[in-house]
Amino acid sequence: MVVRVAVAGASGYAGGEVLRLLLSHPEVEIGALTGHSNAGQLLGGLQPHLVPLAGRTLEATTPEALAGHDVVFLALPHGQSAAVAAQLGDDVLVVDMGADHRLKDSADWDRFYGAPHAGTWPYGLPELPGHRAALAGTRRIAVPGCFPTAVSLALYPAYQARLAEPEAVIVAATGTSGAGKALKPHLLGSEVMGTVTPYGVGGVHRHTPEMVQNLSPFAGERVCVSFTANLVPMPRGILATCSAKALPGTTAESLRAAYEKAYADEPFVRLLPEGVWPTTKSVYGSNAVHLQVAHDASAGRIIAISAIDNLTKGTAGGAVQSMNIALGLPETLGLSTIGVAP
Amino acid sequence: MVVRVAVAGASGYAGGEVLRLLLSHPEVEIGALTGHSNAGQLLGGLQPHLVPLAGRTLEATTPEALAGHDVVFLALPHGQSAAVAAQLGDDVLVVDMGADHRLKDSADWDRFYGAPHAGTWPYGLPELPGHRAALAGTRRIAVPGCFPTAVSLALYPAYQARLAEPEAVIVAATGTSGAGKALKPHLLGSEVMGTVTPYGVGGVHRHTPEMVQNLSPFAGERVCVSFTANLVPMPRGILATCSAKALPGTTAESLRAAYEKAYADEPFVRLLPEGVWPTTKSVYGSNAVHLQVAHDASAGRIIAISAIDNLTKGTAGGAVQSMNIALGLPETLGLSTIGVAP
Amino acid sequence: MVVRVAVAGASGYAGGEVLRLLLSHPEVEIGALTGHSNAGQLLGGLQPHLVPLAGRTLEATTPEALAGHDVVFLALPHGQSAAVAAQLGDDVLVVDMGADHRLKDSADWDRFYGAPHAGTWPYGLPELPGHRAALAGTRRIAVPGCFPTAVSLALYPAYQARLAEPEAVIVAATGTSGAGKALKPHLLGSEVMGTVTPYGVGGVHRHTPEMVQNLSPFAGERVCVSFTANLVPMPRGILATCSAKALPGTTAESLRAAYEKAYADEPFVRLLPEGVWPTTKSVYGSNAVHLQVAHDASAGRIIAISAIDNLTKGTAGGAVQSMNIALGLPETLGLSTIGVAP
Amino acid sequence: MVVRVAVAGASGYAGGEVLRLLLSHPEVEIGALTGHSNAGQLLGGLQPHLVPLAGRTLEATTPEALAGHDVVFLALPHGQSAAVAAQLGDDVLVVDMGADHRLKDSADWDRFYGAPHAGTWPYGLPELPGHRAALAGTRRIAVPGCFPTAVSLALYPAYQARLAEPEAVIVAATGTSGAGKALKPHLLGSEVMGTVTPYGVGGVHRHTPEMVQNLSPFAGERVCVSFTANLVPMPRGILATCSAKALPGTTAESLRAAYEKAYADEPFVRLLPEGVWPTTKSVYGSNAVHLQVAHDASAGRIIAISAIDNLTKGTAGGAVQSMNIALGLPETLGLSTIGVAP
Repeated sequence: MVVRVAVAGASGYAGGEVLRLLLSHPEVEIGALTGHSNAGQLLGGLQPHLVPLAGRTLEATTPEALAGHDVVFLALPHGQSAAVAAQLGDDVLVVDMGADHRLKDSADWDRFYGAPHAGTWPYGLPELPGHRAALAGTRRIAVPGCFPTAVSLALYPAYQARLAEPEAVIVAATGTSGAGKALKPHLLGSEVMGTVTPYGVGGVHRHTPEMVQNLSPFAGERVCVSFTANLVPMPRGILATCSAKALPGTTAESLRAAYEKAYADEPFVRLLPEGVWPTTKSVYGSNAVHLQVAHDASAGRIIAISAIDNLTKGTAGGAVQSMNIALGLPETLGLSTIGVAP
Repeated sequence: MVVRVAVAGASGYAGGEVLRLLLSHPEVEIGALTGHSNAGQLLGGLQPHLVPLAGRTLEATTPEALAGHDVVFLALPHGQSAAVAAQLGDDVLVVDMGADHRLKDSADWDRFYGAPHAGTWPYGLPELPGHRAALAGTRRIAVPGCFPTAVSLALYPAYQARLAEPEAVIVAATGTSGAGKALKPHLLGSEVMGTVTPYGVGGVHRHTPEMVQNLSPFAGERVCVSFTANLVPMPRGILATCSAKALPGTTAESLRAAYEKAYADEPFVRLLPEGVWPTTKSVYGSNAVHLQVAHDASAGRIIAISAIDNLTKGTAGGAVQSMNIALGLPETLGLSTIGVAP
Repeated sequence: MVVRVAVAGASGYAGGEVLRLLLSHPEVEIGALTGHSNAGQLLGGLQPHLVPLAGRTLEATTPEALAGHDVVFLALPHGQSAAVAAQLGDDVLVVDMGADHRLKDSADWDRFYGAPHAGTWPYGLPELPGHRAALAGTRRIAVPGCFPTAVSLALYPAYQARLAEPEAVIVAATGTSGAGKALKPHLLGSEVMGTVTPYGVGGVHRHTPEMVQNLSPFAGERVCVSFTANLVPMPRGILATCSAKALPGTTAESLRAAYEKAYADEPFVRLLPEGVWPTTKSVYGSNAVHLQVAHDASAGRIIAISAIDNLTKGTAGGAVQSMNIALGLPETLGLSTIGVAP
Repeated sequence: MVVRVAVAGASGYAGGEVLRLLLSHPEVEIGALTGHSNAGQLLGGLQPHLVPLAGRTLEATTPEALAGHDVVFLALPHGQSAAVAAQLGDDVLVVDMGADHRLKDSADWDRFYGAPHAGTWPYGLPELPGHRAALAGTRRIAVPGCFPTAVSLALYPAYQARLAEPEAVIVAATGTSGAGKALKPHLLGSEVMGTVTPYGVGGVHRHTPEMVQNLSPFAGERVCVSFTANLVPMPRGILATCSAKALPGTTAESLRAAYEKAYADEPFVRLLPEGVWPTTKSVYGSNAVHLQVAHDASAGRIIAISAIDNLTKGTAGGAVQSMNIALGLPETLGLSTIGVAP
């Protein structure tokens, strides 16, 4: 089987990462690479780490350029995916790494993104019960946001086992690549190095409704989420510190059992040995999720911490994983749990 | 007035920082500098940034070396301050930058530190109502921990104004200098750069009872604290993301008013303009506290974020500030709100 | 004496740094702050670390705004200083932190900068023999480039003592603030962290002719300079590794003697103890120059390495130092040799 | 073909990196993992990024543990490889990632390492003409040092084409992992971040004689090397800035032609497009060498800059590449030119 793949938005970080992974995917042949302002340029100047593709030229993102592929990855700004997807035909697998097709509730979309809602596609987080089946054979995939990936996997087992109250407090540290290549003053190296900066504080971060959407079905009621992101001086990685009040009867044992059960057969999720907490370096460049959970009896809370690479499992790796499922390929093909450390 | 000052533990980060500040203090003359394993070495080799003291030799930490000073700063490992202080005489101002004399409850001390409790000294966080008076004229000061400084100042006004429930959830990012110069594998540069690592998770961090002790009086009941520290790749700085459920009737306006009132006359605390969140770089090397607060109506929580330099306001700057009060000097002498950025 | 100072270009890194220093200068009163695209904004939003100036508003850079000051610091893009200075009157001390008035040779200016040459002003590197006298009483100062400061101080004593051949090879690592706040893709944090990038390679770096101009008089002939800059992941600091073939008869002793003699009375230059090499952290935020020199007998070369803070001694600190000399103030007023470390 | 491989010294950075690569090598089965002070511990606690090996226990480094493998990688401290290798039998391929068997001249060894010389093995830098043949079929490989790899590949084509004088000046920036996991104060994160530090200055760096040994045969005479290393704040990567006086008649064209010819068929060396300079991020985690060269006519020098990952091409990747040659496998098996960026 040879899967012919195009990437729209190949000059950005998400586009570059999906190409990095696809280059090692044994069933994939890389076809068209498209861009907007960079159309006509060589990829070697834009993504110098992708040596095998250095001589490829970016085309403009047009239906003609994207035609003739089995899979098209969209790494586009918010609001642009629907129009491109509409031109691609129902038999083409479209994997949207942007936010356009994640949210089910149009009111949420309107409130947090403020553009017309493009509709909802199968959600590419296979580790959430029920989602793997929905991805099998689909030709449209909405890749989750990086923070919702880290947070949902950290907390859903506690909700599924009814060990936590439906009010979650989450503070997630993230590397700078999550903000993309946009030229903004606060993203300059001089501004980022040596400092931590919060953003999206007070309920306004766009990933908040996606977390609520993911967790609520497991809690059996709406989960209220307080989410704060912290920008830290590293290029990649998310460490999500998540907690919620423990429901009566929760113990360290019942908590661990819930997580062990949830992730016993998941190839990319590693529940660390008891007492060992995750660190983002261990998942640098890999599709792994490292996870630990504890019961703080004194504060009456459960606390779960997950580490992912925001560009890999948090974006492009999750996208490839879901592509594999949709195409009926082995789910782990072209993906790895081995990080680049130190 | 010339205040003659000795520093015990001058080779470490806290010792180095207090010397950095004292060198710019107009009323201070720097006397004995002592160390343990580094006794006999030149300070120039241990603290090469302190050029004016490069030719000074570290003495051993003995009563003789420390005798004859008006003030002695102790930057010693936990459990060693009491014995040194006992030999110094009641007229000498002893400023303990370690943890030994912070906690009032010996059971807390036993549980978190596990050594005999050395007793409680006036607590050097002048911005907490009531503490400034207790520091005036004292000859013993317990310098607060770096996290409790950041957290207590971020949350006490909400408790004082009865706007928050007594259950606080705190995740604080910290630079590596907070862990000191100890040679531990996880503190190597190769391990620290490019990664975020949680530690002291699940109610076991030693600074937790100190936060409870500081906040509870303002809440009128015991405040339950869930605290998690995140080690991030920078040498200095703490960003504390603190939240608690809002009590009924709390509004964005009542919240801001509480903080404006609490800090109207504080020289080192800056409540940022509405909507602007603090960043640690802005307080790099300064004694300032940058602070912002918001009411997340959707999650029903108040959220307060503070930024300090863990070595300055969080340790040595707070120590000098309290020294100034104890000696009857202007409180801001030798200290600054101007950070080194970018 | 109260010196009333204006800063044109107060929103950039050089402007911010000179304000940071001037805030601690006992004889200075800070007057107008001007900007271009940021005119009308509060400084608190642009330079949040300068708390005492947070409420000041940036004016447009006009003759009216700059009138009525004793000193005007210019932190402007290349080519703009001359026009502003022409409007300021001969009795105003104008300190140009840009490149416009550094080079004596108009052909060099044309080749490396490509704009009309604005002329040459007294050069603000007081440690170079002869320059201090030229600065006394002047009302026009050209502040040296950051790399020429580090390199000239590292090498001139070897040339003055005729110990080195007139062909110098220099590789200098620099923090990112040297590139300013311009929004360029390669200066994004995601691009800068975790990497080293050379630039200005092969004789094209604009600071090269300035090094030649500074060193040649001491060599007694034109010094040929091969200069390469390396951008490294830190916000501040320059470490210049400089070498040249040793002339016959050079010994470790004669070399050290030359440097000891050159810097015996310099308040900001510290020749480190033998065998200790400088590190940029030790001069972080200070006006100090740390320096070491060695004779590599095997390779037949002398090697000198200097560390400065590119924004302090390399720009704004050097500017204040020269201002002090020009005004007849003590040269070290408002400046420090104490770095912020770790 | 299944190659059974053991790694002695599996808990360090070189050992971890070779395991990271071998896990993706299609012909390799990972056998014994040994250590010294960490014997008996799980690899999961020591190398948490190597998830597939998390449950493996480190054995002590004994002949019994290492017996029964086709290949043994040695990642041991200097001076320990010979004794271990002696016990392994001549049919076992021993790949020494330490320094013990690199130098041909025992006097060099004595001067720079100071232990008895263990002898010389075939040198694992296949890109140097003649070396590939010497590696084919060998059962002993000396893996080059990281700096000599970067420097030799940057300069040998200029010497081979007789374009440069035999006096090379090299300044190489390196990430901290090159110094290993040893607990030394200057390697702490607090000390490393935000600073650049030179080391091994003045002809004393141990990699100097290895560079001389590699380059001299191409120059036709002894090449004199002045080498300085700069420790920079990143975990991985070497950027080597190398220059030498151009011989008469050298032009930009002749220089580029020499490099194009030298590397036309090399799978891991990428001569970048004219005017584009390498950056270490582009080779992060890959076995690629990025390279650029220029003729600085004004200074009369050629300048060549190479970027490698010190742990991959500079150590473990080079080791695997040479193993492939020795075993008759395709040279690029299990290796990649794709970096992890940003």
